[in-house]
Amino acid sequence: ARTLYGVVGFKNLAIGILPVFPDGRIVLVGQHRFPLGDYSWEIPEGGAPVGSDPLEGARRELAEEAGLQAGEWIEALRFQLSNSISDERGLGFVAWDLSPSPGRPDPTEALAMAAVSFMEALELALAGRIQDLITVAMLFRAYHMACEGQLPGPLAHAMLARNGETR
Amino acid sequence: ARTLYGVVGFKNLAIGILPVFPDGRIVLVGQHRFPLGDYSWEIPEGGAPVGSDPLEGARRELAEEAGLQAGEWIEALRFQLSNSISDERGLGFVAWDLSPSPGRPDPTEALAMAAVSFMEALELALAGRIQDLITVAMLFRAYHMACEGQLPGPLAHAMLARNGETR
Repeated sequence: ARTLYGVVGFKNLAIGILPVFPDGRIVLVGQHRFPLGDYSWEIPEGGAPVGSDPLEGARRELAEEAGLQAGEWIEALRFQLSNSISDERGLGFVAWDLSPSPGRPDPTEALAMAAVSFMEALELALAGRIQDLITVAMLFRAYHMACEGQLPGPLAHAMLARNGETR
Repeated sequence: ARTLYGVVGFKNLAIGILPVFPDGRIVLVGQHRFPLGDYSWEIPEGGAPVGSDPLEGARRELAEEAGLQAGEWIEALRFQLSNSISDERGLGFVAWDLSPSPGRPDPTEALAMAAVSFMEALELALAGRIQDLITVAMLFRAYHMACEGQLPGPLAHAMLARNGETR
């Protein structure tokens, strides 16, 4: 037990993964967030022990939460989740060239999953329907990457397509 | 005292403010983040009691942390800072039409302050030199706003100017 005013240290690095399909859709998973008492749509997130390979942790989380593996990974964001009582460092990845993870024939039974277009996900964030800060930060960082040529052209083009433009 | 595994509820709404000058520079304040034991450059942040007017809280934080007042405000982001032991909801604002806050003749003595170009701030975030997640999320959200016509044209133009283009 610790007092309310102690500082809670984390032994994990927080990891978030934004998985993108070739048509520009991204994967969100439904999380029941106990502290806030409600249901939240987020990118796959988890933790890796400090000192371990973050990319290995990211691969594991993507398989466990979304039943997917990715051929391409790019580190997109380093961050600190700070508040008055805790600290947590984290890393965000964008992952593409997705395929089902071996040995997980029906990943949809594990967690609720949704594939929504990238632009729709941005709209959901702007409407306050996606609020998880790692997810929100990764969505707008990915928008920046797509606009600034930091992702493969066809992928960026598909992500930025408005409704009805291309698919 | 509470146990480590209890859920710590916050009575405050977290608030972040991205203040933008007409030339596209933004204001960062230096914070000594006790939990992480290091110094961090962040946008002005603070809290407002739940149930109070968030914009009033944002005005107060901008004055207290940066010695500034703003003629224009826009709500840019709603978020949840969630982790396994705490929850915090928050709001981010972009503020412009800045002027010195009355009654604070020398705000630079209170907190370390810096005005950096918006594009430079994005580069600092990408280099891992700005990591505070509220700040990072607000920077990339503001990039999105500037690109998507959600900010006044001249302000957006100044924010997106690369080195040496305009000033």
